[in-house]
Amino acid sequence: MFESAEIGHKLSKVEYEAQEPILRIKLLEVQEELKNASFPVIILIGGVDGAGKGETVNLIHEWIDPHYLETHAFGSASDEERERPEAWRFWRVLPPKGRIGILFGSWYTRPIIDRVYGKTKNTDLDVDLMRINAFEKALVDDGALIIKFWFHLSKEAQSARLKLLMKNPETRWRVTDLDWQHFKLYDKFRLISERALRTTSTGEAPWLVIEGQDKRYRSITVGNYILDLISKRLATEHSRTVKISTSPVKAENPYTILDTLNLEQSLSEEDYKRLLEKYQGRLNLLYRQAKQLGRSVILVFEGWDAAGKGGIIRRVTSALDARDYQVIPIAAPTDEERSHHYLWRFWRHIPRAGRVTIFDRSWYGRVLVERGEGFASEAEWMRAYAEIVNFEQQLHEHSTLILKFWIHIDADEQLRRFQLRQETPYKHYKITDEDFRNRAKWNDYELAANEMIERTGTEFAPWYTIAANDKKFARIEVVKTLCDRLKKSL
Amino acid sequence: MFESAEIGHKLSKVEYEAQEPILRIKLLEVQEELKNASFPVIILIGGVDGAGKGETVNLIHEWIDPHYLETHAFGSASDEERERPEAWRFWRVLPPKGRIGILFGSWYTRPIIDRVYGKTKNTDLDVDLMRINAFEKALVDDGALIIKFWFHLSKEAQSARLKLLMKNPETRWRVTDLDWQHFKLYDKFRLISERALRTTSTGEAPWLVIEGQDKRYRSITVGNYILDLISKRLATEHSRTVKISTSPVKAENPYTILDTLNLEQSLSEEDYKRLLEKYQGRLNLLYRQAKQLGRSVILVFEGWDAAGKGGIIRRVTSALDARDYQVIPIAAPTDEERSHHYLWRFWRHIPRAGRVTIFDRSWYGRVLVERGEGFASEAEWMRAYAEIVNFEQQLHEHSTLILKFWIHIDADEQLRRFQLRQETPYKHYKITDEDFRNRAKWNDYELAANEMIERTGTEFAPWYTIAANDKKFARIEVVKTLCDRLKKSL
Repeated sequence: MFESAEIGHKLSKVEYEAQEPILRIKLLEVQEELKNASFPVIILIGGVDGAGKGETVNLIHEWIDPHYLETHAFGSASDEERERPEAWRFWRVLPPKGRIGILFGSWYTRPIIDRVYGKTKNTDLDVDLMRINAFEKALVDDGALIIKFWFHLSKEAQSARLKLLMKNPETRWRVTDLDWQHFKLYDKFRLISERALRTTSTGEAPWLVIEGQDKRYRSITVGNYILDLISKRLATEHSRTVKISTSPVKAENPYTILDTLNLEQSLSEEDYKRLLEKYQGRLNLLYRQAKQLGRSVILVFEGWDAAGKGGIIRRVTSALDARDYQVIPIAAPTDEERSHHYLWRFWRHIPRAGRVTIFDRSWYGRVLVERGEGFASEAEWMRAYAEIVNFEQQLHEHSTLILKFWIHIDADEQLRRFQLRQETPYKHYKITDEDFRNRAKWNDYELAANEMIERTGTEFAPWYTIAANDKKFARIEVVKTLCDRLKKSL
Repeated sequence: MFESAEIGHKLSKVEYEAQEPILRIKLLEVQEELKNASFPVIILIGGVDGAGKGETVNLIHEWIDPHYLETHAFGSASDEERERPEAWRFWRVLPPKGRIGILFGSWYTRPIIDRVYGKTKNTDLDVDLMRINAFEKALVDDGALIIKFWFHLSKEAQSARLKLLMKNPETRWRVTDLDWQHFKLYDKFRLISERALRTTSTGEAPWLVIEGQDKRYRSITVGNYILDLISKRLATEHSRTVKISTSPVKAENPYTILDTLNLEQSLSEEDYKRLLEKYQGRLNLLYRQAKQLGRSVILVFEGWDAAGKGGIIRRVTSALDARDYQVIPIAAPTDEERSHHYLWRFWRHIPRAGRVTIFDRSWYGRVLVERGEGFASEAEWMRAYAEIVNFEQQLHEHSTLILKFWIHIDADEQLRRFQLRQETPYKHYKITDEDFRNRAKWNDYELAANEMIERTGTEFAPWYTIAANDKKFARIEVVKTLCDRLKKSL
């Protein structure tokens, strides 16, 4: 993989000076066009120490309008980062559409370094790399252009370069002890990097290996790659425009798993009060244990309009201290959210250790309302199932407890509640004509919900379907389920 | 201050049940109206332990639609928070316009607790409180409604309450060792709280002291205050609408401090190259020292269009490692930014310890372009001077180095550069008809710049006016100034 990056590519000063001004102009031109494009450009910078990564990034900063360019370097994680899944620190700095983000050190650094230092085995590395492939695929599927540069130097070249930097007092600071430490591990690093690059050179996001020895060569090469790849991506912009699904959900067989729920289940007022007190007390004790262990809890509530999600959530939160939880209602995204991958707005709200975050509607909107209304294309919502499972798996592996509730009522009960809302003054604001119109799509949504439950119900993040024609029954079910799950997992 | 909150206010169950449903409906109604309002509601919760703060917040969560309500509790600061001025952690969670944010523990907690535990003196407390007044005034001036609740209990009542909570296994967890520790300091806490409340009960944001003993009384009282204050604020919404300044900047005396700059200063190509190398080398050494000390550097660049800010910034950044700096270009705000106080978007970018952040245009837009174009009213830009000085002082006290550069050229030089840009292919995108039109306001902007320099040039964050008719001279001046300032401050 690195052979062709050790043959001593060079560019003469004359050639460089002939090419550079043209490259600059063209880069500025594509960047202008990019500003209005519907995708971000993510440039990853990795490779051997001393191969000119920093200089090249500085040069890109000189070439490109810094107004639409941001560089992020990743040192050791902050406590806010450590308390969340590893990917969180990357999600928080991904560039929005129309911009270029350079990531200096990236999701590759930790897996490669851990393997080089023997903290992990090849199988661990491979799992990390598979994850990376899934992550990059999700970004690319969403439109992102990912350009991955690996700066390479042969062992001899690296040694020579480090020595040269050391000689000059002006540049000596660039060489750290860590650089020499890495150098001693050069052969191992090379072998493992090669494995990593091979596994993650996907069709969507291939690696570009850059010979780092000659500054002029590597600068022009990197510049040309960026120019070429952005230009090509811009050219396909039109054809990639999201296609609205031509075959929206059709309820062929409207009998679903949800229909197997016994909606007749109910509780007397007396039992309800008794059980609520019992389970809220239990929940309180259990969530405080989880808090002390630093374990976060994420609750997802989905379900029909007027199914009673709000009332259920309040029965959960009233057992918690207001300091410890956050209810995140999911409505229309802000423009910052719209300019990122659809999962970005949820990553934003991932709780720190020991907190409870309750999503009133969630990322499942992608496979429910966005599917139902044609806001997401069939390809988009189809791949969302895997993206979501992947997302939840990362949370789970960070020892976050995830519970997903589908709050279920039947169409008659919904109608009854809509009418009641119209009559109750302080609930009146909750109901619009739109709500009544949506009822026509009941069967389609039921099918979508059913498919969602089937495709995203996992051992680590199961769906709980809650019969909610009787509000009291549903509330107890949810609080009780949460208690059971907490107890089992502590 | 607390006397009337110790007289045993009570509300009977009958009264409560008569009032509560009406209050709920009205709260939901004002909240509906609030959604479209141009201001946020910030509710601070402070007071004596065990006075029902948590319960009340939970109750507000039950009463009000959680879709537009968020509660933030402040425990010990994270490392990301500790590496920035104290106010940063509050700025990051301030609610946007149209929403209600409850802050549980707030900017009052640390100053009061520090004083109670003898870590600070009364004078320190008073300085903290003055700061708080300035901060709250800035928020209120921007339209925010701040509602400050102080939950009070007499010493006897607190003791009785803590003991009662301890008796019941279901509630025992609520009483921590810290609560008992605080209780021992009750008298001191009361005295200091009273001082704090007295000093910060301003016309803009008065404290509301709530007797915490009777749950029904305190709940209804808090609910009614919220209802009343939001209603009143909504009623004045129209009259508070930003008035566009009727007397925009007028250049009465166009001879300004900027005119005293000798724009003839220049450098030969040879001197430029020599000095650039010299000062970039020096800058590199110095900023790395600052980095090791954890000292951040903030550079602000303002100046005429085409003054050469971009070129100067690149001469600075090329002496830095791309891992250590961030260039923040200030263009139109996003909708999330627009829905906050105008300083919020800058607080977002305050660097962690040891980083360099370069603002290409900045918060000074408030007193330059927003003033010049009438986007900010005269009252708004007039008070911005003090708000900005206050902001920079906080950065300074967090040992951040702040340098502000005004890059100055004359009108003829600007015209020459505009024309040159039109002729240079890769600079062509930088120039629009708008730029030429703006030249008509030259004198007005010069006056505004002059006033800005006079009013916001402080010892800790001085303005450096840079003669930039000769780009080479300007670049050296900036890099040299930065070196001098860094050297002096290390």
